[in-house]
Amino acid sequence: MKENRPTPNWKLKLHEVIYEADTPAGKFFDIALLVVILISVALVMLESVPEYFQKYYWQFYVAEWIITIIFTIEYILRIISIRRPKAYIFSFYGIVDLLSTLPSYIGFFIGGANLLFAIRALRLLRIFRILKISRYIGESNKLKEALRNSRPKIIVFLFAVLIVCIIAGTLMHLVEGETGGFTNIPLSIYWCIVTLTTVGFGDIAPVTPLGRFIASFIMITGYGIIAVPTGIVTSEYGRANSAVKNTIKNSQVCPVCNEQNHLDKAEFCHNCGNKLNA
Amino acid sequence: MKENRPTPNWKLKLHEVIYEADTPAGKFFDIALLVVILISVALVMLESVPEYFQKYYWQFYVAEWIITIIFTIEYILRIISIRRPKAYIFSFYGIVDLLSTLPSYIGFFIGGANLLFAIRALRLLRIFRILKISRYIGESNKLKEALRNSRPKIIVFLFAVLIVCIIAGTLMHLVEGETGGFTNIPLSIYWCIVTLTTVGFGDIAPVTPLGRFIASFIMITGYGIIAVPTGIVTSEYGRANSAVKNTIKNSQVCPVCNEQNHLDKAEFCHNCGNKLNA
Amino acid sequence: MKENRPTPNWKLKLHEVIYEADTPAGKFFDIALLVVILISVALVMLESVPEYFQKYYWQFYVAEWIITIIFTIEYILRIISIRRPKAYIFSFYGIVDLLSTLPSYIGFFIGGANLLFAIRALRLLRIFRILKISRYIGESNKLKEALRNSRPKIIVFLFAVLIVCIIAGTLMHLVEGETGGFTNIPLSIYWCIVTLTTVGFGDIAPVTPLGRFIASFIMITGYGIIAVPTGIVTSEYGRANSAVKNTIKNSQVCPVCNEQNHLDKAEFCHNCGNKLNA
Amino acid sequence: MKENRPTPNWKLKLHEVIYEADTPAGKFFDIALLVVILISVALVMLESVPEYFQKYYWQFYVAEWIITIIFTIEYILRIISIRRPKAYIFSFYGIVDLLSTLPSYIGFFIGGANLLFAIRALRLLRIFRILKISRYIGESNKLKEALRNSRPKIIVFLFAVLIVCIIAGTLMHLVEGETGGFTNIPLSIYWCIVTLTTVGFGDIAPVTPLGRFIASFIMITGYGIIAVPTGIVTSEYGRANSAVKNTIKNSQVCPVCNEQNHLDKAEFCHNCGNKLNA
Repeated sequence: MKENRPTPNWKLKLHEVIYEADTPAGKFFDIALLVVILISVALVMLESVPEYFQKYYWQFYVAEWIITIIFTIEYILRIISIRRPKAYIFSFYGIVDLLSTLPSYIGFFIGGANLLFAIRALRLLRIFRILKISRYIGESNKLKEALRNSRPKIIVFLFAVLIVCIIAGTLMHLVEGETGGFTNIPLSIYWCIVTLTTVGFGDIAPVTPLGRFIASFIMITGYGIIAVPTGIVTSEYGRANSAVKNTIKNSQVCPVCNEQNHLDKAEFCHNCGNKLNA
Repeated sequence: MKENRPTPNWKLKLHEVIYEADTPAGKFFDIALLVVILISVALVMLESVPEYFQKYYWQFYVAEWIITIIFTIEYILRIISIRRPKAYIFSFYGIVDLLSTLPSYIGFFIGGANLLFAIRALRLLRIFRILKISRYIGESNKLKEALRNSRPKIIVFLFAVLIVCIIAGTLMHLVEGETGGFTNIPLSIYWCIVTLTTVGFGDIAPVTPLGRFIASFIMITGYGIIAVPTGIVTSEYGRANSAVKNTIKNSQVCPVCNEQNHLDKAEFCHNCGNKLNA
Repeated sequence: MKENRPTPNWKLKLHEVIYEADTPAGKFFDIALLVVILISVALVMLESVPEYFQKYYWQFYVAEWIITIIFTIEYILRIISIRRPKAYIFSFYGIVDLLSTLPSYIGFFIGGANLLFAIRALRLLRIFRILKISRYIGESNKLKEALRNSRPKIIVFLFAVLIVCIIAGTLMHLVEGETGGFTNIPLSIYWCIVTLTTVGFGDIAPVTPLGRFIASFIMITGYGIIAVPTGIVTSEYGRANSAVKNTIKNSQVCPVCNEQNHLDKAEFCHNCGNKLNA
Repeated sequence: MKENRPTPNWKLKLHEVIYEADTPAGKFFDIALLVVILISVALVMLESVPEYFQKYYWQFYVAEWIITIIFTIEYILRIISIRRPKAYIFSFYGIVDLLSTLPSYIGFFIGGANLLFAIRALRLLRIFRILKISRYIGESNKLKEALRNSRPKIIVFLFAVLIVCIIAGTLMHLVEGETGGFTNIPLSIYWCIVTLTTVGFGDIAPVTPLGRFIASFIMITGYGIIAVPTGIVTSEYGRANSAVKNTIKNSQVCPVCNEQNHLDKAEFCHNCGNKLNA
């Protein structure tokens, strides 16, 4: 036992329920939280539709406050149940959790419906918590590793694509000018990105024969080079796939430092040395 | 012989013709059925064109009933010729077969042209039977296995894409507002899915410089991450491809339990132990 | 010498020039023919632009006849220089070569400018001869083999895509109806193909919330399953790539039966046993 | 020491700063240059927006000349600090550097705002220098090799795609005619490229049932064959990835002949034998 002072038992229990998914209570908390998050996301979406907002103003108002209070309680419980609260407060999820409760309180004192809405939309970021489900899928670690390995190369590739778009966009501006809507270079570059990525909105499109010829060239290039990121990811994933690994399925989280990736047989946190409550 | 009571000979013959494709008669039945299904699909399509429907009302009506009667006879024969009819009736194809005959009879008693049409369209589901041809292609088992293995990872990936779309859609709504048609968040998310998947209809498109800048970012992201599902499928398929397997080409189906995947040399059903009529 | 009667020397020379690319004269003939074909293709394209056609009517007329005469002479020489002309006449290229000269003669006697143009466009098919250049690229055999191996699986896949489009198209017709332009099922299926393949013209687009929701689902599906053909081709190409092979670079063609794929050291045709003029 | 005459010390120092990135000064020069290039690119873009150009005419004019002078000084320093200036002057970057300074001087004497702008846009080509950052990413050599290996095959593939577009475009022109905007064959081919590459602007779209049927066929083909370049690149990259290689991270450049790819432990240039200033 490397602990300095004993953690009260109810704190350990609470930590297990809130931060872990090993026990039935922990799983239930996880799922209940996801449901509340999805409801809050749906609320933000529906509020943005003017006719709904006018019709159900009070219902939205009440639901808004219920969710804010639930999130506030959850935030306080998360801080209480962990031994080093700073590790949570300044983590990505900690900041997101704070940002998803604060706006409602600020809005209450300051007001300003439009700005209020914009900051309340920050609550959407909580949706990333859903991705935590991915830890139930054993092999997703390989995918993560493959993506981490291929990222620098893909970024260089996308950079090269961007440079091609700048050159080609300028060329299109000079060739097409005002006729096809290529009124300035930034707009032409935007069109070039739309085209090279094979999105093709069609709000801007070349009309002169020469412009269309260059556009054909850009499109065929885009069709040919889409192969590059795919080749990178496939190759890296194949490599990660062939390497034998111990997949971590342990969902325990350290009650002191909030570290998550523990081996299946771990009894002490490999980060701070404190005991995990198995 | 592990059979409990002898199956009449004509039933075995009928089962062989209807459920299998080993004999000339079985192959002929398969192909004839596919032709009738394709005709019924073509009928549903053509009926939906108003000018055709008004012009050839009676021809459609007669053809409709001829097909309904053919399908009804086939459905009854399928139930008769199998020893445990429940295995067929509650299978996917059994339910689809029932749903593709019932609407016409219901429509005859109740009426209501528009609703009638909607339920008659269920007949289209029978088109999945065409995919049965795939069993003639030896290696499709590998493909199926690769798809089964990559499904959970692709679903997590598509989920992550969806979350990105929700965040980016909300951002675009806040940035563009009414100007580009981003009138509410669900619509902006719809636009974001259209853009990230590189479909790009162009009915909604950003018009402000900042909106276009963010859109460029979304498009380049979409172009970069399309590599992920491809990498997964390729890697899994490569793995399935390198594993040596006995490809099953036997198209026999057990006359008792309707089990389909028998080894080439199988004489008895591996599921219920009854004799296969080779 | 397995030949029955000696072939005149000038015929062998002519055959070498026209059908092969080993000698300087043969290479020159190949390139000169390609240039004439490209000019004829350019002519067909330019004639289709009404303003050019009216302005340069006589120039087109003269160029048309010059090319027709060149192609006619080439066609006659090809028949003369080969020992079994039927092998050429009924081959793919033989029929294309005939179809690219005949229309001009027919048009001379019958007339009818519009129809004439349509059949003259058949001349475009000669452009496939350009692909013969690919034989100069050593490794293209591997690519061909990979494509041949993956074809049946890709066809089954595209068939499955088509069935999904039929089901989804019908659904969109029932949901959207007239509002978004989904006036009948064939049109809705067309829209579905446009969307699932991520082309997205935007001439037809859903406008109801439910229609847009289903469309989002179709698009994300399309984004996910584009991985399948890629996975198949990549895996097959990787397999063909790892197998060591003798690449055939011999461009000799049998003067008797027109067979093309001879080993580098071949002196007699492996198909008819006649001597190749090395 | 294989040098013929001693290079002055200040020249070696200058060469190290300008051409290399090993020393802090060299790194600073690299980054400072990139910043100036990015500013000049931003200027060209902003100048193309008419409202900005009219409003900030003098600011643009001054900034234009400051950048021209910086680039001129850099160009002169580059020529001075290298021992064989011709190796730099006639290299790709040497020509681009010259073309990015000259236009401003020419414009000063000749004038003509519009033409001036077009040639000043050549300055954008300097943006390629940014790609030099890629040398900090160790494995990009493998990617380059994979791309070099797959290029000939991808070009043949794109050529085949182009031929398909020519044939299909002609067919669409004959089928659709004026109705859908397929007014002439070059335009129809352009549409076909837009469709097959899954860009799909929607400015031209088929309206007749037959045209839409052919379009569906083209789109499904495009969806199926996008797999080919991906398969090629993936396979080649996988091959390059599995081959063990010494990655070159040495960023030294020979002060005499400007050769760049030196081994990490190199002390003399492998190209001209002169000493590298490590």
